[in-house]
Formats: sequence, structure tokens, C-alpha cells
Amino acid sequence: MPRWEQGSADRLTKAALELFEEQGFENTSVVEIADRARVTTRTFFRYFPDKREVLFAESDRIRTALVQAILDAPDVTEPLQVITTILAEFDWSGLGIAVQRRRHSVIAANPGLLERDLIKQNDIAVEFIQALRKRGVEESTARLAARVGIQVFAAAYAQWVEKDDGADLRKLTDAAMALLQTLVPPDRAAPGPVE
Amino acid sequence: MPRWEQGSADRLTKAALELFEEQGFENTSVVEIADRARVTTRTFFRYFPDKREVLFAESDRIRTALVQAILDAPDVTEPLQVITTILAEFDWSGLGIAVQRRRHSVIAANPGLLERDLIKQNDIAVEFIQALRKRGVEESTARLAARVGIQVFAAAYAQWVEKDDGADLRKLTDAAMALLQTLVPPDRAAPGPVE
Repeated sequence: MPRWEQGSADRLTKAALELFEEQGFENTSVVEIADRARVTTRTFFRYFPDKREVLFAESDRIRTALVQAILDAPDVTEPLQVITTILAEFDWSGLGIAVQRRRHSVIAANPGLLERDLIKQNDIAVEFIQALRKRGVEESTARLAARVGIQVFAAAYAQWVEKDDGADLRKLTDAAMALLQTLVPPDRAAPGPVE
Repeated sequence: MPRWEQGSADRLTKAALELFEEQGFENTSVVEIADRARVTTRTFFRYFPDKREVLFAESDRIRTALVQAILDAPDVTEPLQVITTILAEFDWSGLGIAVQRRRHSVIAANPGLLERDLIKQNDIAVEFIQALRKRGVEESTARLAARVGIQVFAAAYAQWVEKDDGADLRKLTDAAMALLQTLVPPDRAAPGPVE
């Protein structure tokens, strides 16, 4: 959306977050969100198809930027690291870390929002796989690198928003990858070529 | 549900699958599913809360059995392998591999069903994490082992149902784990103890 329209969308997101925290997602109506943001219901629906989507205002832009980063990566011979690095280096702060933290809690506490979040995460995985395939990565490798990479990053991201200690997302992601190394059994024999 | 009631539930699942294949998930009503299974709509709702759930009739039983297997595992010092082994050795054939294959296609093709499937997968992950915690596995390790283990298995399961070559799910899961070994960067230094 044009920059001059961003104000209303941001206000709607913040208003929705406040109301979901105060009275719960199920008990909040689009009319209340619009009122709190001082816009009409009609304006709400110009930005968002429903009250779930108001917490995912940036998801298309984020997904597009991440996919482009895969397509632009100088080297994809280590696809799992490409995925986790791109995710860890992305600017997730958006409306600010405090808002991200509140958003994370509200989503985790509401099945309707969690469902939407899982679908968005799956959409990202599907497009990551396609992007890796375009870069010449073999199908099974692309699938596993995208799916596992997202889980490694998600573990770090959860720590990032749950803790209030100013930890660095990049370092937390590296730590999650180091932990994964300890979990994967040692590579007993050199693997054959992957078809 | 008692065994003597299983017949109607199975018939409803098979009827729903046929109708979703023939005319799509969105275009199919509960009334049509009940008619095809030769039961009343009221009987449908005794078994399932909505038309999505009819393809997930076994999900509670499956999740409970898998969680119990984690609690009963003789050794959880390699939690990622515990997760993938338990998933790979479970009897997924249910109504038969042919039905599983059709179910997998129908879910993948319908966003409404895919959403429900993702929620079920997340429920399994959450309970796996709790079960590993009960077995004394540290929090970050439990999270990563459960989430990554499910992805490794899901990659193998997708191959199992997508290919019609009688491949063994256990071998496909081992192959997915071997592929993950090649993707995770070598463990440059011995990791310190995980808190």
C-alpha cells in the first residue's frame, strides 16, 4: 500500500492488538477495532479481509522480501544455512520489538490466530522451496532445508520475543543451529549423491 | 469410540473423501456426506463437529499413541531420533494406503483442510515437547527435536504417499535423516553442555 495510507493500517493493527489483549480475540468485533483506530468499518475492510488478518498486515511484504533474498543469495550450496541466515538477518522489528512481543503472545493464546499464523508459515515454506528449486537445489533437499530451516529460526525467534534481555536474533539463530548439530546423528558414512 | 460404532465413522470418512474428490471440499455439504454414507445428518454430528474434521477421525487416537510412545521410550538421550523413529514405526495405513494417498491429495488441494491439518500437526508438536520435557529433556532441545523431527518425518511421509512404489516408510525416514546430516554444517567445535 502507498506510504500515505500506512498510518491507518498501523493504527488498526495496534488497536486490534490492544483489544485482543484486553478482552480476547473472540470477543472483539471489527466495529470495535475500527472505532478504537478512529476509522470507519469500511476503511477496515479496505485494508483487511477479516479480523484475523489485521495482525498479519505485513505478511505479503515479508514473504516477498525473504523469497527475493533466496533468489539473490550469492551461493546456495549450503541451503539450510541460506534459509536460517536470511530469516535471522531480516528486520523483524516492524512496529517495534515491544509490539512484536505482544503480537506473539496474542497469537499463541488464540487458536483462531494461531491457525492463521501456521498457514502463513506454510505459505512461506512453499515459496522458499520453489525459490530453492529455481536456484537449482534438488527437490528433497529444497523441501528439507526450507522446512527445517524455518523451525530452527522459529525456535530462535520464540526466544527472542519471549525474553526481555535484548538478545541478538542472529546469535540466537546460530545457537539453535549449533543445538541442531548436537541432535543430528554423526554422519557415519559419506552420503552418496542425492538424485 | 466403541468398536461397534466405528463402521459409521469409517463410512462417513470414505464418503467425504469421494465427494471432496468428485466435486471439491467447498462444494460438498454435510448433508451430502451423510446421504452418501447412508446415515442421518444427526449421526454425522455425533461423530464429527464439522465437515473438515471428518478427514481427521483418527487424529486424537494417533496423537495419544505417539505421545505414549515417547513416554515409554527406553532411552531419550537422542531425542531427535526418538521422535523420527516413533513416527516412522507407527502404523499409518489406517483405512489402507490407497485411502491415505487420496486423503493426502485432497488435504493438499484444499486450503480449509490444509489449515486443519497444520493445526493438528502443531498440536502433536506441542504434546511431543511436553512429553520430552517429562522425560527430562531440556526445553530448547525438546522444542527443536520435536519440531525438526516432525519435519524430517513429514518429508518421508509425503514421499511415501506420493509415490506408488511400495517404498518402506522407515527407510524413507532414515533417508530423510541422512539428507539432514548432509545439510547441517559440521560440528566445528564440541558443543558445551546444554542448560
